[in-house]
Amino acid sequence: MPSNSPFSAVNRRALLSTLATLPTLSGALLSASASAQTTKPSDALPSWNDGAAKQAILDFVHLTTDETSANFVPPEDRIAAFDQDGTLWVEHPVYTQIVFCLDRVGDLVKAKPQLRNRQPFKTVLSGDREAIAKLSMREFFEIVLATQSGMDVEAFREDVRKWLAVAKHPRWDRPYTELVYQPMIEVLNYMRANGYRTFIATGGSAGFVGEYSEKVYGIPPEQVAGSEQAFKYGYDKDHRPILTREPKLVLNNLGAGKIQNFFMSYGRRPYAAFGNSSSDDQQMLEYVKAGSGARLSVAVLHDDAKREYAYGPAQGLPNTSVGTFSQQMYDMASRQGWIVVSMEDDWKRIFAFE
Amino acid sequence: MPSNSPFSAVNRRALLSTLATLPTLSGALLSASASAQTTKPSDALPSWNDGAAKQAILDFVHLTTDETSANFVPPEDRIAAFDQDGTLWVEHPVYTQIVFCLDRVGDLVKAKPQLRNRQPFKTVLSGDREAIAKLSMREFFEIVLATQSGMDVEAFREDVRKWLAVAKHPRWDRPYTELVYQPMIEVLNYMRANGYRTFIATGGSAGFVGEYSEKVYGIPPEQVAGSEQAFKYGYDKDHRPILTREPKLVLNNLGAGKIQNFFMSYGRRPYAAFGNSSSDDQQMLEYVKAGSGARLSVAVLHDDAKREYAYGPAQGLPNTSVGTFSQQMYDMASRQGWIVVSMEDDWKRIFAFE
Repeated sequence: MPSNSPFSAVNRRALLSTLATLPTLSGALLSASASAQTTKPSDALPSWNDGAAKQAILDFVHLTTDETSANFVPPEDRIAAFDQDGTLWVEHPVYTQIVFCLDRVGDLVKAKPQLRNRQPFKTVLSGDREAIAKLSMREFFEIVLATQSGMDVEAFREDVRKWLAVAKHPRWDRPYTELVYQPMIEVLNYMRANGYRTFIATGGSAGFVGEYSEKVYGIPPEQVAGSEQAFKYGYDKDHRPILTREPKLVLNNLGAGKIQNFFMSYGRRPYAAFGNSSSDDQQMLEYVKAGSGARLSVAVLHDDAKREYAYGPAQGLPNTSVGTFSQQMYDMASRQGWIVVSMEDDWKRIFAFE
Repeated sequence: MPSNSPFSAVNRRALLSTLATLPTLSGALLSASASAQTTKPSDALPSWNDGAAKQAILDFVHLTTDETSANFVPPEDRIAAFDQDGTLWVEHPVYTQIVFCLDRVGDLVKAKPQLRNRQPFKTVLSGDREAIAKLSMREFFEIVLATQSGMDVEAFREDVRKWLAVAKHPRWDRPYTELVYQPMIEVLNYMRANGYRTFIATGGSAGFVGEYSEKVYGIPPEQVAGSEQAFKYGYDKDHRPILTREPKLVLNNLGAGKIQNFFMSYGRRPYAAFGNSSSDDQQMLEYVKAGSGARLSVAVLHDDAKREYAYGPAQGLPNTSVGTFSQQMYDMASRQGWIVVSMEDDWKRIFAFE
């Protein structure tokens, strides 16, 4: 991290220390230390270093679940939304679901040879990683729709499970489902232990993420809000009713779509939201924080080049093809009182296997 | 019920007795009587008369939750979908949500006077009940979109709650939320007590039903799948982020749309489904029943003119503007082994207040 960046670690700490002195939070600090809790706050997040970010999460949960608090939230309204890529698991160098789709292009062109010489499929088949990484989001979407359509919805579920069982991340040589951030798993468990229902709000396909979300995050598929393709009712050759995945986007969870579709699907504004990407989480984090009473918006900053990755303009680093933390979002976080989590400073460890 | 109808009570009973002798169900009868259960089956559904319909529900739940059963379903897959109008509560003489929207037309034309002399608003304002009842579903949809759009999504939630607190059904002079079928409430509770997660799959707006579903049915808003209007992100005059309801249908849950959108949103085929309408539940019931292993599809027949209503061609009665039970669906139920519930014969009482 360049020390002359306006978003240096020092400035980030200054931001956090400002947040820690906000009236509601300092009140929470007092009441938290004065009351007995089922889970001692100090034990609830063992993979977090002590600091303002960890404390803000503990304080928020205490403040909203303590019946004597002015900010008490009844259990039926305790809703927390988590972005997935870059917030719950690794998104570098390319979103896992995109890797899944790229791996399916070979079979796709066998079935539809006319695609072999058409872009973006031709680039994918070339195997040129650099060229593939440079494909636009529109081209990635074209690949997603082409490789996730035309089959029975239950056959697709099976395909996802089979791929997840064998695919590995090139850097760690481990299944993608092991590359989840242990500190965030602890936040999920801690919030659920305090009556929060946890949801995923992802730009990816709910039909992909839902196949492992329960096992990996403890979040059942019905609590995964994602981009969605149309399903079409029909009958197979044996006259059995089937649902087929169609190459038509019904819900687009990118940008503001994420919070638009979340509220539409689940009927409420979350009390807490966690994200990391300016392009896809900014509106969700802004909207959640703007709600009445105590609200928690948390943005994860990828600033740990050694243990994970460091990227994004908020640290003066180059943009990447995956979700980035822009300067504009950093300013918004500061102005609106979000919590910015430094992976380098706030997380004692990144993965469970470390 | 005309005795010469091919869908007379006698034939319905013949169908049920055929179902009761199917191999899987007779196996369930044996194992149910041989094993101890937390809830004694005979006590679980007290508002149901003993009979083939009640027994089929008890057997299905036992069969899919007994770990020694070949049809055991792991808890994470125990999903049951319930239509609302006509299945969980009264839909006659007009869907409750439509009444809510009709009640809003007055305020709508105050804000948009140009609609006053336009159809279908003109008919609604005339107060001519007969003419209003004859409006087409397309015209009702126009009224729904017009009266549920343009406002902040949280303000709309408040409107729904206020209306529900004062609106009453003309026949019983009671709040609509009391006109829920007690036997179905018992089914919801019984299935949940056995590890099933219960969902509503309605043709109505999820944003309407979700406002009372938790209190009335024990089903949280995130487990209500309904027709959905687009939400749009923006800012109010004080630069606060808001979501606005748009007059644009994103998810249409009518017809096959109900099961298409259910699977799309929740990622799985339910193991059990309950409905009553040929136009909106038929594909869901067919698709659920066609799944592997033990599956339960239940269709409620409105044949109790005295305690509730009797309507629909399956009983040789006239069609109505609300969901009807067609002869085609009756044949399908018979052929595919659904359970048909007679409100008159199978339900000891209809409402909790009786």
